[in-house]
Amino acid sequence: MALINENYLKLQAGYLFPEIGRRVREFAEANPDKKVIRMGIGDVTQPLVPEVVKAFHQGVDDMANAETFKGYGPEQGYDFLREAIALNDYKNRGVDISADDIFVSDGSKCDTGNIQEVFGSGNKIAICDPVYPVYADTTVMSGKTGEIQPNGYFDGIIYMPCNEANSFIPELPTERPDLIFLCFPNNPTGTVASKEELTKWVNYARANKCVILYDAAYEAFITDDSIPHSIFEIEGAKEVALEFRSFSKTAGFTGTRCAFTVIPSELKAYDSEGKAHPVKPLWNRRHTTKFNGVSYPVQKAAAAIYTEEGKKQVKEVINYYLENARIMRESLKETGFAVFGGVNAPYVWVKTPDNMKSWDFFDKLLFEANVVGTPGSGFGPSGEGYFRFSAFADRDNVLEAMERVKNLK
Amino acid sequence: MALINENYLKLQAGYLFPEIGRRVREFAEANPDKKVIRMGIGDVTQPLVPEVVKAFHQGVDDMANAETFKGYGPEQGYDFLREAIALNDYKNRGVDISADDIFVSDGSKCDTGNIQEVFGSGNKIAICDPVYPVYADTTVMSGKTGEIQPNGYFDGIIYMPCNEANSFIPELPTERPDLIFLCFPNNPTGTVASKEELTKWVNYARANKCVILYDAAYEAFITDDSIPHSIFEIEGAKEVALEFRSFSKTAGFTGTRCAFTVIPSELKAYDSEGKAHPVKPLWNRRHTTKFNGVSYPVQKAAAAIYTEEGKKQVKEVINYYLENARIMRESLKETGFAVFGGVNAPYVWVKTPDNMKSWDFFDKLLFEANVVGTPGSGFGPSGEGYFRFSAFADRDNVLEAMERVKNLK
Repeated sequence: MALINENYLKLQAGYLFPEIGRRVREFAEANPDKKVIRMGIGDVTQPLVPEVVKAFHQGVDDMANAETFKGYGPEQGYDFLREAIALNDYKNRGVDISADDIFVSDGSKCDTGNIQEVFGSGNKIAICDPVYPVYADTTVMSGKTGEIQPNGYFDGIIYMPCNEANSFIPELPTERPDLIFLCFPNNPTGTVASKEELTKWVNYARANKCVILYDAAYEAFITDDSIPHSIFEIEGAKEVALEFRSFSKTAGFTGTRCAFTVIPSELKAYDSEGKAHPVKPLWNRRHTTKFNGVSYPVQKAAAAIYTEEGKKQVKEVINYYLENARIMRESLKETGFAVFGGVNAPYVWVKTPDNMKSWDFFDKLLFEANVVGTPGSGFGPSGEGYFRFSAFADRDNVLEAMERVKNLK
Repeated sequence: MALINENYLKLQAGYLFPEIGRRVREFAEANPDKKVIRMGIGDVTQPLVPEVVKAFHQGVDDMANAETFKGYGPEQGYDFLREAIALNDYKNRGVDISADDIFVSDGSKCDTGNIQEVFGSGNKIAICDPVYPVYADTTVMSGKTGEIQPNGYFDGIIYMPCNEANSFIPELPTERPDLIFLCFPNNPTGTVASKEELTKWVNYARANKCVILYDAAYEAFITDDSIPHSIFEIEGAKEVALEFRSFSKTAGFTGTRCAFTVIPSELKAYDSEGKAHPVKPLWNRRHTTKFNGVSYPVQKAAAAIYTEEGKKQVKEVINYYLENARIMRESLKETGFAVFGGVNAPYVWVKTPDNMKSWDFFDKLLFEANVVGTPGSGFGPSGEGYFRFSAFADRDNVLEAMERVKNLK
């Protein structure tokens, strides 16, 4: 008798973003005359930059001729892309990561979800609260948790609340975890972590033989030179951390699909007898057995962001979104919201007015201002009473949305 | 302490195709003057057809303009592609599959590997021997097996030997499995299954509450009208089967990456109390939580194979490979090999001469004829003493390779 994975039954109704999509769709269908401004899913709006488009077309042309046609590529990604990443994202910032440590994939969502497969089912996972829902959901799916508790926490996950009191930076957990998800610049709060802060985590992981799963999907938005872009800027991190990076927000690749994960050779985890094993060969085995590489023209397109011209063009787009964030922060503050994040990050995190529940504020904003944001509670119980605005939007829409929010009753 | 997934340690050294790649690379580096003909990995050689290239470029152009730019798409795939698939691959063949049953992905390797996640760890898996290595390897990774036995079988997997005696068509297993992987036209043996044969399996699955995981990656090579292209051509299959399809071999997408999995609403699996649950929402949950859709331009490219012109162009390429298969079959027979498959399938399966071990024949062929094939034993113990030739090659190379094989001492 074919058995289902009953862990799936523990999951809560719809994943956050489909649920937002559903509510917005219903509203839009019932109100076809209303112009809805979407700042909810955190999806980019600016087109691919010209350098990327040019390389993408060249990649397609390569596929059109027998001499240049590419069949199966290396599952880990083409050298031209891995080397460009190693040089530009790491070596040029003084971080010694080799191309061989880089695994190109079709998205950080996939990687952050799949990574747990190479770690044993006995691991305890620590996650921030609020946090990108994929970390917790995939932990539940993999059978490492019990049921959800009345407080919204899954039994078996170690939650690290992030709130105003700790400036949305998690404190070291009191119960010792094995795997720790960290994300900076943070989704959803827009918080960044200083070198000092990250050093604290690396030291903790070293002392406790933990592995840090570091999500740096938003590093491109860091403008403050003192803020690390990579966990590997911290001494000793290579032995206790791996890092997720994505072209989604860096270069508008949410619909083009390309990302990568960095696993240094030094990173170790342990078998049940305490013997250390390098993690990289395990991920390499998964990557070569359950994945078949990223589309060649997409990799060509991704590599173009590392050309001189590509860098400039991508930077302009990032600055455009950062300016959106600045406008939103100031306008929301002026309107009377308590505002966090939005500096070195594309997300602005606000307290809902009058301690309104997050989803209630979502509905109010949708129904009355026709503006879509993201309810903080969708990211975890500590997000209740908060709301995320995304700077990934057209300027006109940002200005109009802020105006509408200002006029909310 | 971060623990590794110790199931990975049970896996044998390298996955088959990387191992072939390694040996070929070493040979080529040591013998730079030798022209190596590669018929090993089963990778296509013909470029994307013009209709596909045109649509691919259009997709890229859409990404270059704010008005047509696509961010996150539906994780399950765009409707334009799902509907084209439902119409052309199913409805037009008299099979009632709706677009909603179709989950577009970046590859069947991923899907066949990931599918087990929605089924419980208590399931017993049945696979053919020999077989595409991903089914067994991912079963081991997921912890459903014990160690490998001296006979090359993993403890806990039900193997169904396919050999000359049963014409490479598996018999019903004596021990009852829960999930059954079937692949027709078969990789590696090139065998096809008749309607009668598949009906036997569907009836067995219905009687025993099994789920059939049907891999139809090579259906485009079927020319005999009496052979089913889909498991869903069999009455009652929708309640007990899901199906993997791929554009890789159908349209030369091995480096472009697009595939799909069909899960009818009727398909059920069971919880530990025997209560039936539909499988589709579980896969939908996985797909939306751990995957973020296929690159939009790639989906545009894939949809182009369903236009009038696209169908014709793709068919021509298929015929080209089928003609290769015919040439190989006849030449190898003439040379004195016992030859199987290669009709309605792109793979020709031969017995090694003098009962030579598969890897020994691989090395002999590589060293003496500079031709790369695939050792049968790489697909499972029953493949020992067999060898796979792939028809995915340029005509000139096929002719030259056959000539070289003829002249082997």
